[in-house]
Amino acid sequence: MHQENDCIRAMVWQDGVLRLLDQRRLPRQEIWLELDDCAAVADAIRDMVVRGAPAIGITAAYAAVLSARRRHADSPHGWRAAFETDLERLAAARPTAVNLRWAVQRMRAVAAGRKGDPVPALLEAAIALHRQDIAANRRMGELGAALIDAGSGVLTHCNTGSLATGGYGTALGVIRSAWAQRRLTAVYADETRPWLQGARLTAWELVRDGIPVDLLVDGAAAHLMKEGRVQWVVVGSDRIAANGDVANKIGTYAAAVAARHHGVKFMVVAPSSTIDMSTPGGDRIPIEQRPADEVLSLAGQPVAAPGAGAWNPAFDITPAELVDAIVTERGVVQAPDAAGMARLMAEAGSG
Amino acid sequence: MHQENDCIRAMVWQDGVLRLLDQRRLPRQEIWLELDDCAAVADAIRDMVVRGAPAIGITAAYAAVLSARRRHADSPHGWRAAFETDLERLAAARPTAVNLRWAVQRMRAVAAGRKGDPVPALLEAAIALHRQDIAANRRMGELGAALIDAGSGVLTHCNTGSLATGGYGTALGVIRSAWAQRRLTAVYADETRPWLQGARLTAWELVRDGIPVDLLVDGAAAHLMKEGRVQWVVVGSDRIAANGDVANKIGTYAAAVAARHHGVKFMVVAPSSTIDMSTPGGDRIPIEQRPADEVLSLAGQPVAAPGAGAWNPAFDITPAELVDAIVTERGVVQAPDAAGMARLMAEAGSG
Repeated sequence: MHQENDCIRAMVWQDGVLRLLDQRRLPRQEIWLELDDCAAVADAIRDMVVRGAPAIGITAAYAAVLSARRRHADSPHGWRAAFETDLERLAAARPTAVNLRWAVQRMRAVAAGRKGDPVPALLEAAIALHRQDIAANRRMGELGAALIDAGSGVLTHCNTGSLATGGYGTALGVIRSAWAQRRLTAVYADETRPWLQGARLTAWELVRDGIPVDLLVDGAAAHLMKEGRVQWVVVGSDRIAANGDVANKIGTYAAAVAARHHGVKFMVVAPSSTIDMSTPGGDRIPIEQRPADEVLSLAGQPVAAPGAGAWNPAFDITPAELVDAIVTERGVVQAPDAAGMARLMAEAGSG
Repeated sequence: MHQENDCIRAMVWQDGVLRLLDQRRLPRQEIWLELDDCAAVADAIRDMVVRGAPAIGITAAYAAVLSARRRHADSPHGWRAAFETDLERLAAARPTAVNLRWAVQRMRAVAAGRKGDPVPALLEAAIALHRQDIAANRRMGELGAALIDAGSGVLTHCNTGSLATGGYGTALGVIRSAWAQRRLTAVYADETRPWLQGARLTAWELVRDGIPVDLLVDGAAAHLMKEGRVQWVVVGSDRIAANGDVANKIGTYAAAVAARHHGVKFMVVAPSSTIDMSTPGGDRIPIEQRPADEVLSLAGQPVAAPGAGAWNPAFDITPAELVDAIVTERGVVQAPDAAGMARLMAEAGSG
């Protein structure tokens, strides 16, 4: 399954246990937690051992296998009620992650009509989910890399790689593919305040996979573009509206505005499950305000004077007109708008 | 000298000693160093106890007084050689700060023809330098505040306040003035990575002076503008070229690009000594690359994986066409260009 420039997995099912790489400790420590209990996995999701919407969904699918195994062993005929309780606890671990509820629902459906031991079918479904995610990422990687001319530099934001998905990544998958095809002269990563996913996670992934990377503070990205060092900005998305507006980690919109100012192209890479056709435009996507303390403190130490406030939105909205291409496993929408998004979703069926 | 919303000084001459607020400890500790020795002040400048070009110049002027007092006491007739050695050491403490060399030269000139005890004349000169800087800042504050309509929100970057100057500040002086005139509905401050001057220093100043402030990560500024929360960006400058291009802390250019995109006005506030008529344009201003470690570490702890690089320019250049007003103590240049800058410098004489 692993290839060159793709040696990292956030979760591994091995010898009947789920192994999770503790992302809270990266890059300083690489600690794998071995979990054989569904409740412990729910705690791990809640506590951010694993993060990134696709990665959370896959982790929850494996957790459902752990639940079924224990509950069925405890009570081969009455296991379903306890299994359902476990699924509900899993689904509540990160209430806003839509992939989490989707994966739990899928495992619930697999178990629903099953007679006898549900574990083999659930494990098969979880592994399939995991493989499908990686396959979708590889497909997006190919489609996105094909848009990037050889000799280009790229800038990315946040972490959208193997750690945030089943493996390979979305935006970072495009960068892996483009790098493998020798299209890239340089890879730059925003450190991505306030959580520093770029510094802590993206840089770690790229170093591990042998792809040279230079970090920069988020405020330096416009100056980077002015110097002509990058030809593409490549980012992921948390939700894409029906008109092609893109919600993503705070700082994405600033990069899009600067990219347009400099004639740098802007690519959004996300599975089609990210596209929410029931949300007409980005102005209808609610933006979570996170605690002030994330800005006022660093590494657990206060950096700002007591009494200072903070304005700390977790996401921002990049309007479709600033996006040059939306890349999904179903295909690419260039210069996205409502018509283009509708065509993408219709052509490939409701999948 | 102090007024409402202006209770902070970075350096105070008191009872024959120079007191310096240790800015490295802010905002967690407020520690005043009492220095009566010129060499110790040179060390304090080198070690960033005090920073900000105008603040460094004024501190050096007081240090020259300390030197003259000691050298003249030691040798009332042969003190000049040791005094000159002290001045050279002072000037070398931060080799790039032009105000430092300028202040040292001014003190050298005051001492030059002096007979008898040089201390009274030097102290008078140092106090005058300090007062003139505050007066210039107050004048800039008035001129800049007059450009801001009542009911505006403002965003600033880095620290340009009392801590960076003799008192009151440049860009932060405009914000103090506009606040005192009840023109402002909100003050936002970029945290200003990688050094966090916004979080550590600007927020501390504003809290101390009773002006409410909200910090944000630098990448959130474009989203702040999109939400209509600010009508002006107000920043300082390290050097202004003859055509009005502005060098300032990294991240300034990104804010200027985003401001133009959103129709938010962009003001640069700096004393006319910042204007370098011998530099025709911003492309001729060298940009210092700082050590990668400033991005790869936080609070002395590594945050990025070993092996990751960093691209860490200390400054960027904002072209004049993105600047709506340059405010100096000599007057305001609206929509700055080479002709406007030349008029400003000619009208007021060579001062």
